[in-house]
Amino acid sequence: MDFRSENFDININLSLPSLLITNNMKKWLPRFSSTSTPLNETVNRSLDKQVKLAVTGLSRSGKTVFITSLVHQLLHGLGTTTHLPFFQIASSGRLRGTKAMPQPDMHIPSFLYDSAIEQLCGDPPTWPKPTNGISEIRLAIRYLSDNPFFKHLSPISTLYVDIIDYPGEWLLDLPLLELEYEQWSEQIARACEIEPRLSLSKEWRIFLNNLNLADEADETVMRQAANLYTDFLHQCKQHGLSLLQPGRFTMPGDDLKDAPLLKFCPLLEIPQIPQNTYNENSLFAEMKKRYNSYKEHLVKKFYEEHFSSFDRQIILADVLSAFNNGHATFVDMRDAINMVLKSFHYGKSGLFNKLFGGLKIDKMLFATTKADHVTPDQLPHLETFFQNMLATSHNNAIFEGVQTETLALAAVKCTQAAYTMFEGKKISCIKGVPLKSDKPVALFPGEVPPNVPMPEEWVKGRFHFVEFKPPRLANVHGGGLPHIRLDRALEFLLGDKF
Amino acid sequence: MDFRSENFDININLSLPSLLITNNMKKWLPRFSSTSTPLNETVNRSLDKQVKLAVTGLSRSGKTVFITSLVHQLLHGLGTTTHLPFFQIASSGRLRGTKAMPQPDMHIPSFLYDSAIEQLCGDPPTWPKPTNGISEIRLAIRYLSDNPFFKHLSPISTLYVDIIDYPGEWLLDLPLLELEYEQWSEQIARACEIEPRLSLSKEWRIFLNNLNLADEADETVMRQAANLYTDFLHQCKQHGLSLLQPGRFTMPGDDLKDAPLLKFCPLLEIPQIPQNTYNENSLFAEMKKRYNSYKEHLVKKFYEEHFSSFDRQIILADVLSAFNNGHATFVDMRDAINMVLKSFHYGKSGLFNKLFGGLKIDKMLFATTKADHVTPDQLPHLETFFQNMLATSHNNAIFEGVQTETLALAAVKCTQAAYTMFEGKKISCIKGVPLKSDKPVALFPGEVPPNVPMPEEWVKGRFHFVEFKPPRLANVHGGGLPHIRLDRALEFLLGDKF
Repeated sequence: MDFRSENFDININLSLPSLLITNNMKKWLPRFSSTSTPLNETVNRSLDKQVKLAVTGLSRSGKTVFITSLVHQLLHGLGTTTHLPFFQIASSGRLRGTKAMPQPDMHIPSFLYDSAIEQLCGDPPTWPKPTNGISEIRLAIRYLSDNPFFKHLSPISTLYVDIIDYPGEWLLDLPLLELEYEQWSEQIARACEIEPRLSLSKEWRIFLNNLNLADEADETVMRQAANLYTDFLHQCKQHGLSLLQPGRFTMPGDDLKDAPLLKFCPLLEIPQIPQNTYNENSLFAEMKKRYNSYKEHLVKKFYEEHFSSFDRQIILADVLSAFNNGHATFVDMRDAINMVLKSFHYGKSGLFNKLFGGLKIDKMLFATTKADHVTPDQLPHLETFFQNMLATSHNNAIFEGVQTETLALAAVKCTQAAYTMFEGKKISCIKGVPLKSDKPVALFPGEVPPNVPMPEEWVKGRFHFVEFKPPRLANVHGGGLPHIRLDRALEFLLGDKF
Repeated sequence: MDFRSENFDININLSLPSLLITNNMKKWLPRFSSTSTPLNETVNRSLDKQVKLAVTGLSRSGKTVFITSLVHQLLHGLGTTTHLPFFQIASSGRLRGTKAMPQPDMHIPSFLYDSAIEQLCGDPPTWPKPTNGISEIRLAIRYLSDNPFFKHLSPISTLYVDIIDYPGEWLLDLPLLELEYEQWSEQIARACEIEPRLSLSKEWRIFLNNLNLADEADETVMRQAANLYTDFLHQCKQHGLSLLQPGRFTMPGDDLKDAPLLKFCPLLEIPQIPQNTYNENSLFAEMKKRYNSYKEHLVKKFYEEHFSSFDRQIILADVLSAFNNGHATFVDMRDAINMVLKSFHYGKSGLFNKLFGGLKIDKMLFATTKADHVTPDQLPHLETFFQNMLATSHNNAIFEGVQTETLALAAVKCTQAAYTMFEGKKISCIKGVPLKSDKPVALFPGEVPPNVPMPEEWVKGRFHFVEFKPPRLANVHGGGLPHIRLDRALEFLLGDKF
């Protein structure tokens, strides 16, 4: 256990202000713990640890299912030593039990675990409804300490895990903080020059081309432009694209739906004449004003209020769906992840250090979900592919002090490995109930290329990974949900905290 | 015109920092204004005035219709000098035109005037959908100044009117700031001892009675209790009751719907044993914690961020619907209004002065809406009745420096005066299309008692004021919507600002 990373010394000092804590502590603290109960409790509490686990994902990556399964594993999957073999605290038998606790932040919506698990374990089971906005859940994990010193003082310790769920779209707003309205507009305009955005943006572009940016800003025109741009973003989402900026346009929430700071859009052509010849009431000036207001009120606020307190970050993506949707969708997903990583940039010149004085996050997990949609022998390929996809960022970004990991996992395993015959030979396949069917089928899901295929190799129909229904489970509280490699994720994210 | 109330001198000083503004101003400023255009513009802007008009109402008082009509009158009703006879700036012919402007607060949802007026003036016309939460719209009214000094300097001035719309329920949260959780619980418990709350609260009360408040707080139990209490509030609302606390429970908005600070409820019996014997994780402690968090995060925040900047306040109520619903509903409405007024309490000991360092509001209008649902000869009775209803507050509350006014008005007049025969004699009645009909009918709507009837006089069926459909209008932008006494409201609220 690394004391520095835990801030253990500091915790104790803060909790026991009246006691002089020195290196002599070992001599007298154990004696003390057996005689004075209330003070012992104080000591215990000071030894308890807390970790804030932030979970986000690109659209339709299965974030809600991931969190639901994570919570379920911790609540019900710790009973046997075999269900989570790579999660050492569980497999070593040192875990004593987990329970849900009232969350610390009253104004953050709760992650509705109960209703999610109800849907997932219903008869018939259904995928839980995706969450909107931010939500939170707190778990308390009680375990046997193996620290030679602390286990005398307090054999049972508690790790409080706060899981915070927020939309991937909010993460994609981060790069806006470094961009002026004009620069951002140019990025979007360039993206709209190629398919599929070229076709999807047509209506919005025609409307925009008919506007005179020097005209006085008219609320109706601003709203029409913003609504057409929002429609375009929704269509991009439908199309499987990941780069949807500004992120709040597609998920505004009741409180902001009709607010002016969501009623602007980028421009296709940035006026070349000096800005100050535009009247402060002009369409151009008002668009720019709202963009800046969006950054100030929404983007910065989220990072200041929430992001800066996260200890660990999980970013989920569904690479298989990108395969299905073709080369452009894949490139878009790759660019989205890399764009976020670039803003994180942990070095001294990084955005976070400049704006928020640095981040706490010391571990980052990138996971591609739905790994049960390929045959077990393809799993290493999927993982290699995902690693290659992120290679640019891994090499270029200076992740000073941040440990990163890539994984292919299934939060809830919906398929079983099976075999079928192909040209007289046994071939690996998977068996499960496809989303649009009622009967289980055994199918050969296709091969995952370990390297990114050339654009011309993404021929239509080459990739077609099928989505499945959740499995029917007889005794859901008897053990954790079936999964693939969720234990590795847990070990990476929490293992060092016990 | 009262210069002190306008802060005129201060405005000028702020806008022209490089000029020495003294009492000698009159001598040189007019000369100056004719030679230097940009500076003249700066001067003009410094002479423009701004007023923040806050509109709220008890549930179903017709707040959205009121604001829509108010905006429509200002945009289209100023062309003739006869449409708004009591609004002097209009009837004197000094108005030059009004237009909607981009609102100043980017993060507040816009009041969707366009879609409201579209519904109201559609064919068939429909009542606009009620608004949720807070919203805002800015109008700029250009008028001919009649101030002997300023009219030389700048003959056309602009008054910016920001109309801010927020739920009456939020206003009813104000008294919570003065109440501890235990005190508030007791108030609610007492209200639930009598009908109709006694019956409506049954399910929630049974659930609550089966809880042990010393038990450890369980999230599922907390949510069940809160949901049952929220259901009860919704039923109260259906029943026409006004006192619905906490106000956000019935209209939470997406962003807070599942947040813990909306997941508590009052208690029926406050534990008599000292609080500190309750564990900090107990159900009782957690309920109290959330109540305090609600006050801190929602109630205080609204008053700090918004309320403190309001200049004028309009409170709408629908007294006629209270007549229809019987004595208990009437009493509830009266108590709700008086409770709010008591918290306003403008004197030195008032809540606002204690918590927020005083309020800007200097005029308050109480209006009972839908005055077109009674015959014109009953209008004075309706107004007298409403005045009597508020008499307690008018007398007791120390409205230091705040001018109050009561009015009966119809934001959109749906009926015409007509006559019918009763026992051989002509009797006043009204003609309009009832909400549940397609044909216009002439009906005698019943008499309004000028004084509050005794409880036993509220016999079932004595009062039955019918709701009407909006009128069909041929040329909606040719003049303001038909109304009753909206011009008096405008004169009271804005008249002194021109």
